[in-house]
Amino acid sequence: MDKAAKLRQLIDSKNLEFIMEAHNGLSAKIVEETGFKGIWASGVSISAALGVRDNNEASWTQVLDVLEFMSDATTIPILLDGDTGYGNFNNARRLVKKLEQRNIAGVCIEDKLFPKTNSFINSKTQQLADINEFCGKLKAMKDTQNNKDFIVVARVEAFIAGWGLKEALHRAEAYHQAGADAILIHSMRSDTKEIELFMKEWSDRHPIVIVPTKYYSTPTKRFHELGISLAIWANHNLRTSINAMQKISKQIYEDKSLIHVERNVVTIEEVFRLQEVEELKEAEKKYLPPQE
Amino acid sequence: MDKAAKLRQLIDSKNLEFIMEAHNGLSAKIVEETGFKGIWASGVSISAALGVRDNNEASWTQVLDVLEFMSDATTIPILLDGDTGYGNFNNARRLVKKLEQRNIAGVCIEDKLFPKTNSFINSKTQQLADINEFCGKLKAMKDTQNNKDFIVVARVEAFIAGWGLKEALHRAEAYHQAGADAILIHSMRSDTKEIELFMKEWSDRHPIVIVPTKYYSTPTKRFHELGISLAIWANHNLRTSINAMQKISKQIYEDKSLIHVERNVVTIEEVFRLQEVEELKEAEKKYLPPQE
Amino acid sequence: MDKAAKLRQLIDSKNLEFIMEAHNGLSAKIVEETGFKGIWASGVSISAALGVRDNNEASWTQVLDVLEFMSDATTIPILLDGDTGYGNFNNARRLVKKLEQRNIAGVCIEDKLFPKTNSFINSKTQQLADINEFCGKLKAMKDTQNNKDFIVVARVEAFIAGWGLKEALHRAEAYHQAGADAILIHSMRSDTKEIELFMKEWSDRHPIVIVPTKYYSTPTKRFHELGISLAIWANHNLRTSINAMQKISKQIYEDKSLIHVERNVVTIEEVFRLQEVEELKEAEKKYLPPQE
Amino acid sequence: MDKAAKLRQLIDSKNLEFIMEAHNGLSAKIVEETGFKGIWASGVSISAALGVRDNNEASWTQVLDVLEFMSDATTIPILLDGDTGYGNFNNARRLVKKLEQRNIAGVCIEDKLFPKTNSFINSKTQQLADINEFCGKLKAMKDTQNNKDFIVVARVEAFIAGWGLKEALHRAEAYHQAGADAILIHSMRSDTKEIELFMKEWSDRHPIVIVPTKYYSTPTKRFHELGISLAIWANHNLRTSINAMQKISKQIYEDKSLIHVERNVVTIEEVFRLQEVEELKEAEKKYLPPQE
Repeated sequence: MDKAAKLRQLIDSKNLEFIMEAHNGLSAKIVEETGFKGIWASGVSISAALGVRDNNEASWTQVLDVLEFMSDATTIPILLDGDTGYGNFNNARRLVKKLEQRNIAGVCIEDKLFPKTNSFINSKTQQLADINEFCGKLKAMKDTQNNKDFIVVARVEAFIAGWGLKEALHRAEAYHQAGADAILIHSMRSDTKEIELFMKEWSDRHPIVIVPTKYYSTPTKRFHELGISLAIWANHNLRTSINAMQKISKQIYEDKSLIHVERNVVTIEEVFRLQEVEELKEAEKKYLPPQE
Repeated sequence: MDKAAKLRQLIDSKNLEFIMEAHNGLSAKIVEETGFKGIWASGVSISAALGVRDNNEASWTQVLDVLEFMSDATTIPILLDGDTGYGNFNNARRLVKKLEQRNIAGVCIEDKLFPKTNSFINSKTQQLADINEFCGKLKAMKDTQNNKDFIVVARVEAFIAGWGLKEALHRAEAYHQAGADAILIHSMRSDTKEIELFMKEWSDRHPIVIVPTKYYSTPTKRFHELGISLAIWANHNLRTSINAMQKISKQIYEDKSLIHVERNVVTIEEVFRLQEVEELKEAEKKYLPPQE
Repeated sequence: MDKAAKLRQLIDSKNLEFIMEAHNGLSAKIVEETGFKGIWASGVSISAALGVRDNNEASWTQVLDVLEFMSDATTIPILLDGDTGYGNFNNARRLVKKLEQRNIAGVCIEDKLFPKTNSFINSKTQQLADINEFCGKLKAMKDTQNNKDFIVVARVEAFIAGWGLKEALHRAEAYHQAGADAILIHSMRSDTKEIELFMKEWSDRHPIVIVPTKYYSTPTKRFHELGISLAIWANHNLRTSINAMQKISKQIYEDKSLIHVERNVVTIEEVFRLQEVEELKEAEKKYLPPQE
Repeated sequence: MDKAAKLRQLIDSKNLEFIMEAHNGLSAKIVEETGFKGIWASGVSISAALGVRDNNEASWTQVLDVLEFMSDATTIPILLDGDTGYGNFNNARRLVKKLEQRNIAGVCIEDKLFPKTNSFINSKTQQLADINEFCGKLKAMKDTQNNKDFIVVARVEAFIAGWGLKEALHRAEAYHQAGADAILIHSMRSDTKEIELFMKEWSDRHPIVIVPTKYYSTPTKRFHELGISLAIWANHNLRTSINAMQKISKQIYEDKSLIHVERNVVTIEEVFRLQEVEELKEAEKKYLPPQE
């Protein structure tokens, strides 16, 4: 089963499934080794790791370069947080071609304007895309994909921008009709009130994806009951690595020494293991002439 | 003072100075915020973060792209772990031009063959570069730089490859004569025996750089006494982030929930702070027309 | 004098000056060898050479990669045809930083929406940028540049989009006030009627740039009389190379032989000369150990 | 039939077939439109077009970026002039993966050392690769490919480096045994003496590829008689475009006008046609909401 088919299975299954954020080849590999069935290539994490803002400061091909490393390092499907598709329908359909070449399983686009701003910043002044324009974009993407299983998720930002339930439902249905394989309904509340209202009306028309970054304290059991298809743990590998690097940098800076840190880091051999050094050693035996 | 001048000052100062590893824009910024005066753009860390091996699997321009993000995100100097210079003298001098354009303060090249293998892997079978060839490379690099302060460090791998003190000294002196601004003497012993032997003979002819990854338990006082100019904490941000990501991925995978992890990660607002979201908000007030 | 200062001189001089299109390192070098004082890095030519459309299908960093090769291969200033700045003011100011790093002398942005369409296609349905938004973008770019001589040209598309003289003058003056170093007044008529009307009103408030692609038959003397500062020969290296490649491919395909084409192509030695093979031969003598 | 299968067919057919050089998306498209069945992605042409030397000055991923545009713009197979594989067997097998992702049909590697020098420069001092090392590289590449039809051509430089027939045959047979799908036998003589000697001994053991750049005046009939499988017209689109650009730049520079050149260049509409502007116009009707 190819990566797109695996992602489709996660989304179409009757169970609640989970995918975990990664932002480079290394974190992607860790997500896979942990046992997760899929990877969320997070926009905020990728931009933050690069050292830029989540406002399309990195070009879409720079994001693509990150994705290629991530995809090459793993065998589980990757769902890209594709912002607005990086322009109009033409940019978005071009993106689909490039993602398929790099064996990315799917992409989620949000109904905002390019260049986007992270949903948790200035949320109430964010402008939403015109519905027809966004539906045309979704159609163009679906018409472009070669692999029938490639996934396009439509992310509804109506709650984020303060438009309420009616607008959220109206947009979700329009995007569903336009061909989206799933709807991501986004909320920045610390509870699931908006999500609950939405799910009550939506019923199980079409798979629903959520990102519980702000309502992290909600028991997962509740997501099951609501009929959510996929929950995205959206930026925690990045956030833990910042925490860890800030601490160790501080300690080494203050100690002027490595003595107290060795036990808190993985060994250099573990780095090599993650880089699959053994495979190369075996290959060298096979393909290099013996050294005299 | 520009970045190259700052790095030159670190290397030429009579004090023992320290620089800390980073592997992307984010970790570079953390190193700077911590207070370090310089950044080591580590080859093993950059390759591992990308998801490939430390064997020149990433192309030199892919490394350059990483460096550009690192340099743009920081104001302290970056010293690149430049492997063998990615080819012969012509590739190495081209590298110098590209590094200067991206405001990288210096580069360290090692006397091995392209494609290189990490010094801690298969060390005893690693082949060293021809001394004359390597000196020509150093000369070409020094002749190419525009900024008089750009730093070229020559890394001596004689101990790593099992050639002993005499070869190490011979090469160090040759590279010094060829124009290297400092000598990095590398050792994979868990003690400083090789370093001590070397420093005793070398005296203070020219600045010496060390990488105490394997002899991490040596008290820093000893490096002072030996007359070392610069110590590189070479891969610890990477190694702590692996540790942290493996743990949090495991916990979230097992918990199927974020409840227990929120306190162990930085807030999303801290991510935004590192991305300098505030600067953009101010700029939007200045450059965007008011929204109706 | 650096490249930006050279471009500023061309624009500020009282004479009519000319720059010529290039689309890669090779054509840039040919433009310089011919004697031109500057290079127009044309959007339509670069996109066509890459094999994509002039609709921001290539990412802005892919364009940047082309520019870097062009800049490295030449010593005369390059003015980039920078479309709309590839997004909002934040993308545009980021572009300025990246251009300065690559020693590009200036950029021209046009008052349309991202993603742009070539001005000669669907011209009458093209939407213009909001004037205030575009002025904010210009200000942000001018505030960002490090080199005081870096040039920002504002391209007025009012005639192209069918808005007429009044709108063109209104926009030109607003962009001038916002800090643009020159105004490019674009016209797709086969005569200079629009340009003449504009220049009559504009007088010599500020330097004016033109692109006579469509009114190519106008004698250059007329541009002098009108007080134009800079004329751009905007896409002719591309268009002649297409002509030449179509012809030679056809002939070789039909002949199944090279016999009849050798005299119509430059020698392989001329290719080597343009690649500066001699410089490398000299450098090899200097930096490579003698071969036994 | 996919692109690799098409290339395999060209190489395995009993007829003498021809492929034509291209160096970017545009020239690739022109080659296809002309009727050729395949494209030679020439190392010297790609490097010259970029503005650098044919000495691995462009990184292998920069070459890959060029190839991706070429592949996306065409439907006929592309055979890459892959120099030495850009390093050892590990770099070469990594290259194969990347080429397959970008739908490149095959790659030719030559038995020289990295960084390479163009075969027509300093030919007699060029060093050949160790045979065993090169055979290991070929094996690694063949073991890596996913698509059974992906082509690896082994280029024998023995004649170029002055080693003569015996060495050429010895190497050709070794590479054939190692799994190469075809042998490219290279010669820089202005006649076919070396090629004839080789073919007489080689008989029809395995498909032979030639590059008649230097012996261009040989009638193609002779290649038929010798049993050649594939002839590569290796750099003529580049060489004619240089000729054309030098002439038109000179004329425009001297005339300070476009008046005399318009008839010698393709129209801007022909540029748009090559960029497939019409497809986008149709797509806009389909996917963009109607403008009010």
